[in-house]
Amino acid sequence: MKKAWGGRFEKTTEAWIEEFGASILFDQTLVEEDIQGSIAHVTMLGACGILPMEDVKTIKGGLEKLSLKAKEGALSFKIEQEDIHLNIEKMLIDDIGEVGGKLHTGRSRNDQVATDMHVYMRKEVIEVIHLLRVCQQALLHQAEEHVETILPGYTHLQRAQPISFAHHLLAYFWMFDRDIRRLQDSLKRINVSPLGCGALAGTTFPIDRHYTAELLGFDGIYANSLDGVSDRDFIIEFLSNASMMMMHLSRFCEELILWSSQEFQFVEIDDAYATGSSMMPQKKNPDMAELIRGKTGRVYGNLMSLLTVMKGLPLAYNKDLQEDKEGMFDTVTTLKGCLTIMTGMIETLQINKEKMYKATTQDFSNATELADYLAEKGIPFREAHEIVGKLVLLCLQQGVYLQDLPMSVYKETSVYFEEDIYKILDVMTVVSRRNSTGGTGFAQVQEALRQAKKQIDE
Amino acid sequence: MKKAWGGRFEKTTEAWIEEFGASILFDQTLVEEDIQGSIAHVTMLGACGILPMEDVKTIKGGLEKLSLKAKEGALSFKIEQEDIHLNIEKMLIDDIGEVGGKLHTGRSRNDQVATDMHVYMRKEVIEVIHLLRVCQQALLHQAEEHVETILPGYTHLQRAQPISFAHHLLAYFWMFDRDIRRLQDSLKRINVSPLGCGALAGTTFPIDRHYTAELLGFDGIYANSLDGVSDRDFIIEFLSNASMMMMHLSRFCEELILWSSQEFQFVEIDDAYATGSSMMPQKKNPDMAELIRGKTGRVYGNLMSLLTVMKGLPLAYNKDLQEDKEGMFDTVTTLKGCLTIMTGMIETLQINKEKMYKATTQDFSNATELADYLAEKGIPFREAHEIVGKLVLLCLQQGVYLQDLPMSVYKETSVYFEEDIYKILDVMTVVSRRNSTGGTGFAQVQEALRQAKKQIDE
Amino acid sequence: MKKAWGGRFEKTTEAWIEEFGASILFDQTLVEEDIQGSIAHVTMLGACGILPMEDVKTIKGGLEKLSLKAKEGALSFKIEQEDIHLNIEKMLIDDIGEVGGKLHTGRSRNDQVATDMHVYMRKEVIEVIHLLRVCQQALLHQAEEHVETILPGYTHLQRAQPISFAHHLLAYFWMFDRDIRRLQDSLKRINVSPLGCGALAGTTFPIDRHYTAELLGFDGIYANSLDGVSDRDFIIEFLSNASMMMMHLSRFCEELILWSSQEFQFVEIDDAYATGSSMMPQKKNPDMAELIRGKTGRVYGNLMSLLTVMKGLPLAYNKDLQEDKEGMFDTVTTLKGCLTIMTGMIETLQINKEKMYKATTQDFSNATELADYLAEKGIPFREAHEIVGKLVLLCLQQGVYLQDLPMSVYKETSVYFEEDIYKILDVMTVVSRRNSTGGTGFAQVQEALRQAKKQIDE
Amino acid sequence: MKKAWGGRFEKTTEAWIEEFGASILFDQTLVEEDIQGSIAHVTMLGACGILPMEDVKTIKGGLEKLSLKAKEGALSFKIEQEDIHLNIEKMLIDDIGEVGGKLHTGRSRNDQVATDMHVYMRKEVIEVIHLLRVCQQALLHQAEEHVETILPGYTHLQRAQPISFAHHLLAYFWMFDRDIRRLQDSLKRINVSPLGCGALAGTTFPIDRHYTAELLGFDGIYANSLDGVSDRDFIIEFLSNASMMMMHLSRFCEELILWSSQEFQFVEIDDAYATGSSMMPQKKNPDMAELIRGKTGRVYGNLMSLLTVMKGLPLAYNKDLQEDKEGMFDTVTTLKGCLTIMTGMIETLQINKEKMYKATTQDFSNATELADYLAEKGIPFREAHEIVGKLVLLCLQQGVYLQDLPMSVYKETSVYFEEDIYKILDVMTVVSRRNSTGGTGFAQVQEALRQAKKQIDE
Repeated sequence: MKKAWGGRFEKTTEAWIEEFGASILFDQTLVEEDIQGSIAHVTMLGACGILPMEDVKTIKGGLEKLSLKAKEGALSFKIEQEDIHLNIEKMLIDDIGEVGGKLHTGRSRNDQVATDMHVYMRKEVIEVIHLLRVCQQALLHQAEEHVETILPGYTHLQRAQPISFAHHLLAYFWMFDRDIRRLQDSLKRINVSPLGCGALAGTTFPIDRHYTAELLGFDGIYANSLDGVSDRDFIIEFLSNASMMMMHLSRFCEELILWSSQEFQFVEIDDAYATGSSMMPQKKNPDMAELIRGKTGRVYGNLMSLLTVMKGLPLAYNKDLQEDKEGMFDTVTTLKGCLTIMTGMIETLQINKEKMYKATTQDFSNATELADYLAEKGIPFREAHEIVGKLVLLCLQQGVYLQDLPMSVYKETSVYFEEDIYKILDVMTVVSRRNSTGGTGFAQVQEALRQAKKQIDE
Repeated sequence: MKKAWGGRFEKTTEAWIEEFGASILFDQTLVEEDIQGSIAHVTMLGACGILPMEDVKTIKGGLEKLSLKAKEGALSFKIEQEDIHLNIEKMLIDDIGEVGGKLHTGRSRNDQVATDMHVYMRKEVIEVIHLLRVCQQALLHQAEEHVETILPGYTHLQRAQPISFAHHLLAYFWMFDRDIRRLQDSLKRINVSPLGCGALAGTTFPIDRHYTAELLGFDGIYANSLDGVSDRDFIIEFLSNASMMMMHLSRFCEELILWSSQEFQFVEIDDAYATGSSMMPQKKNPDMAELIRGKTGRVYGNLMSLLTVMKGLPLAYNKDLQEDKEGMFDTVTTLKGCLTIMTGMIETLQINKEKMYKATTQDFSNATELADYLAEKGIPFREAHEIVGKLVLLCLQQGVYLQDLPMSVYKETSVYFEEDIYKILDVMTVVSRRNSTGGTGFAQVQEALRQAKKQIDE
Repeated sequence: MKKAWGGRFEKTTEAWIEEFGASILFDQTLVEEDIQGSIAHVTMLGACGILPMEDVKTIKGGLEKLSLKAKEGALSFKIEQEDIHLNIEKMLIDDIGEVGGKLHTGRSRNDQVATDMHVYMRKEVIEVIHLLRVCQQALLHQAEEHVETILPGYTHLQRAQPISFAHHLLAYFWMFDRDIRRLQDSLKRINVSPLGCGALAGTTFPIDRHYTAELLGFDGIYANSLDGVSDRDFIIEFLSNASMMMMHLSRFCEELILWSSQEFQFVEIDDAYATGSSMMPQKKNPDMAELIRGKTGRVYGNLMSLLTVMKGLPLAYNKDLQEDKEGMFDTVTTLKGCLTIMTGMIETLQINKEKMYKATTQDFSNATELADYLAEKGIPFREAHEIVGKLVLLCLQQGVYLQDLPMSVYKETSVYFEEDIYKILDVMTVVSRRNSTGGTGFAQVQEALRQAKKQIDE
Repeated sequence: MKKAWGGRFEKTTEAWIEEFGASILFDQTLVEEDIQGSIAHVTMLGACGILPMEDVKTIKGGLEKLSLKAKEGALSFKIEQEDIHLNIEKMLIDDIGEVGGKLHTGRSRNDQVATDMHVYMRKEVIEVIHLLRVCQQALLHQAEEHVETILPGYTHLQRAQPISFAHHLLAYFWMFDRDIRRLQDSLKRINVSPLGCGALAGTTFPIDRHYTAELLGFDGIYANSLDGVSDRDFIIEFLSNASMMMMHLSRFCEELILWSSQEFQFVEIDDAYATGSSMMPQKKNPDMAELIRGKTGRVYGNLMSLLTVMKGLPLAYNKDLQEDKEGMFDTVTTLKGCLTIMTGMIETLQINKEKMYKATTQDFSNATELADYLAEKGIPFREAHEIVGKLVLLCLQQGVYLQDLPMSVYKETSVYFEEDIYKILDVMTVVSRRNSTGGTGFAQVQEALRQAKKQIDE
């Protein structure tokens, strides 16, 4: 039995090992960051007198050539040089000769890879902030058009109170705003340089970490070398923030899916974001909204993965940390894709004002207004409630709504009712009267739009 | 402001949408399953008289050609035909003409993709069971060599009682055995055919679902068409089982890492699974053990992803379900790689018997034996404990262990002590006396090896 | 600065430590299991001659008294005796004297607590299986009433094809059935005795593990003592199964919430499971459905917790394992509650047949039937499609549906159309013709009900 | 069959429903926040002329009495008044009469509960920041004592380079510092008032949200009422931050557990945080370190729970949100306990300097220094490496270390070696020479201590 398995096994194992140990298949994403990090490092080595200036010049020249090639996609990476760092070093030495080996003076792969990831995260977080701003912009455009578009506000997916559609859209504006704030805060912890932390304990060379940090645009340096090489908090913080963003997007997508159903028919998603059926022209699947909602799971999973990896790891570097990258790359791609598609969906969304409005006139969400009306005329609240309760019951029996009852019925019920009640019961009045700060009243929504614009122009 | 963003945005969005909607980049893994599923389907269409036999023959011929090409890696998939099903259909029609379009009669992509995944999961689960058996085999080989190799058994990472190394290895044997049982049980739910469930409601064609199920080697069919197309339980069950396996592997890897440290030095991992340092010949990083431990996070994350995707999804198919594949593929690859490497590491593991044994002689884990000794001679347990406590204290003061104290000291402490106590205190005696069923006593371990072998030959 | 913090700190720490170390606040749930385990253990100690029969009798008497008190809720547990085992032992000794101490002979808290949890899990898994059966029963009752109740079948939350409501309900029946199968399979791994594994290595006493296993109703014993005390797979397997069940419930709850909305109005949840509003009589929040959907998160979290706890733990017992209980207890309570409430909601659910039916007549989901009609008359499928496409377009322009078009229009479009098309277009015909095995055709649904009943009576 | 189940079922269901719907069993934690929120609200109602001042006075008086009682633990909550809000309102009305009902004017339970949680989170986050500072203080105390205490620095759990123990401790100082920064950043999003957002859309009463925000110590108000009542980001952000903290603690605990093992013996955990064994005096289980490590799973799980709950929830309030509280409370308790215990463990930790130091002298981690020595004398690095490689090999053959080789051997190998090499090889030299910023060199560590102290006094 052993032999049969064994024979087959030997070969497989070797292949698996090579594939497992190597990271070049995914960390080549960091090629530009790696080269820029190396340029900064060698510049510093020259400035500090650690390497002679002519070596520095040769190495920088070689790195710049590689950078150009990388931009053209002309580099080909090899599994034998297991990761991006060794691939680049090999290419450099192949090109400029043995002097290329001096680049690694006073540096370790541990601080090098950490540096690459900090530079990468900074770039991508800034990009994601930008995409969030673009998405807020799209929300704002739609909101400006729909201040007086009325839809039912829901709690428990039951119609609760009519609200302005702009007000609803702005709720997401502020969620995205918090997302931006969180990302901006996270940059304080991302934009810090681990370069020069060495393998774990620093280096004996008289390097200048502040100088490389400055060259790479970092705001500061890690205060502790052990921490610098083993910290992955900044990635977890990104994954947490990304999970929150995806959660926000999933809520909006859920609403778009509901609103696109034949039952709601509040909106129509643009053809570009939906798939249709040649036979059933009315059928249009909100594919992109569903896919974004589904991708929430992927990002949550990436967060959970890295949290698990880091649990209980002793200091400093452990090979487990190699597992930090794929989830990060995947989350960046997912997030950027979802935000871009979301923005497009919002920009092109067709709003079915009539359906939305009609929905608000077919319930009793204006009953509260009537009770308030009586209360303001001095009727004790409890009594007012009772009167309105009776009216609602009457409506239900007759299959009509409050605004459909004739004045005579109102008068019979309470002498306090006057002709102005029809105005009071009108949905537009109902909405406009919720004018407390941050409420759905039109004046408030206009003010909110002004605030939101200011926020974006910041 | 709008324009600057807008201009750039339009173009990007289209690219993102295409990439997002398409699944061909990852679902091409299912090429073989998809073709086999189609062959079974068209065979049935012929047998049921739904398609004329000559069409069936042409289509089968075309599919078999594609299958051959697929095996040679000669198919090239296109993003325009967004998924594996449309890619294959397009290639078929390109090859055999319009008749190829008849293949899809009485079938929907919803039941087709579900069928592909059931076939895929069955294949891979059987492969994983095989790899677990191979890994058990490796454990068994090592265990057979090390029945009388003694190491400290730990609780709380503190030495507790000396045990047989074979006994320790067999603990993992039984964990893997449970993993196998769970996978075998899961096959009952994997090996069920959704083919013929249609889009969601079945089909009007007089198809024979039992026949396609038989052709594809399924044990049965889904009883309900809505369930058949929207069920992803079998993948979640696999991801749960995979998480459990990775957890088991992570526990063993943690031990290998500990045991490889300079502090323990119980084992030496083979060079193939470790990386060294040219300067520090004693340094050997247990890279593969660390990586497997790290990959636990990845699999947990994949489980969490799919659970999140499925939460709160209404019936039947939703586009969110497209997110079911990448995590499944990634888990299969990870698991197979980890098991293969683990087996190799176990097979080639060097055991440092002396270090292990020495560790068991440098503590007081044999103190309990002494108390039992006195208790058996009729001394009340409490008094026996007190006597031994005093002896331990004496040892600590003198920097020796119980077995190092001269007989005279024992006699002074209690007249019940005889020369045979040195035998009692001997580690081998200590181990051999724990002879309760499933215990570490040598007779028990031998019996356990017999059981384990029987289990494997099953 | 130090002093201010320090002074306060000392006291707090002690309190925290006591609270942290103790488990009695939650493991008292295991009181009955613990006592029964002890009774089995001491019975065996007597039978094996390890303890004299009179001691055994005294101890058993004491334990039985404690068991009675426990049932009356008359035991009061103390934090000082940190866990359930020490609390019971203390009470026993307080009652029957020093002989009570002999109960712990040949046993350790490590195998004792594991035994308690196996017995507990067995009891609760059997109870959950029962509750699932009850819930299936409720589904069956409703399904039997609604074979010919038609609702739109959805994909992408878009109406796709009309289906039988019974067919929809039965989809959940089969999900729950898989849940039951998984739980039954898990019992093989739950109903195994770790008793007698000792602290980690077995014991020197001549115990009979098979006898205690038999007394406690176990099907077998753990083959390896290290594994027996450190295995928590059976809890993780339960939490995985529970997560799957909650996912199923969350899907159904999502549908109930959708169906209860003013937009769908397909069902009305019984007052007992909803909350209303005195002012808005039409408003009825599907609270219980929302809460069950929300509780899915709780169970997923409990699964993730234990997976995290177990990752990378070396053998054998570690204090981390104390974290295995609260999530398990919480999941059991959550699951039982959700299933009970779900069953009640299903039993009492009011179905609005008219609304459901009406929804199926207001779309073009019958267009496919028309194309099939032509195809059967020999028109090439492609041409048939084109003809129907034109008819649909015509309908859209006129604001009608296919069944509303007069015969003359049909005849103009294609001579193949006959009067029988109105029958074909009828929703009932559409549904009944999807008569493939497992499909929604009425004959199939009747057959499915028969199968389902057989399953339950099993 | 139905009857047997049914009879039993009815009763159970009711009990389950009551238990499920009610939150008073856990939200009573918010009693103080709820009363303070109400006092602020009613004060504003008075100031804005919405309620007459005498009513305001009566209500405030009643609330203050309840607050006093709450502090004394003299309130008893009832399940019938399902949550904390209704319990307090009922008690208020019972005490001051019907006027108590006016308190709820212009407020909804939706904004009320959100307000309570913001106030609660603010209080607890500030407390956690404080506990982190105290823990940093403890690290600092130990670090100050151990600047020149040397231990092996590890990568891959293999000894890599000797480092200062203070340097190692300070790595955690900076992790905790990031935790503090993250919590401080989160306060910007926690300390925002949702009070006045109403049920979802604001209110018709002329309330002053800025005034209540000011009274409750908030820095601002939610700009959008829908967002204000349905936002739970601030809790997820806390759970993410908590997960990160637990991850940091788990890493330190893992090290404490390793260092406490007989194999390492680097530290001894104080008896207060460990459990011993009467028979094995050398055995001391690091219980508290294990438990903290285990509790990491619990907090990760709580994060995953709430992320799952929020996924795909449409606006605004849904009952699912009731699931936001228990995980938050549990995380707060867990975190505060873990930090308090961790601080105590650090403060009282016994450091075994000799063992640590000895470990650094029994490997070849100083070999790099020798190569650098030669390189500095002008020998090409490659050649230098080769020479040192030979020396290491010689040592291994003789069973000695580099510092043990006589000068004669060095001279034979290379004439460049001088007597000063023994100084170079000395561990203290090795450490002190890693003097790059943030490195382990003693001068750097002293500087780091200064920085750390400044950070704390901030």
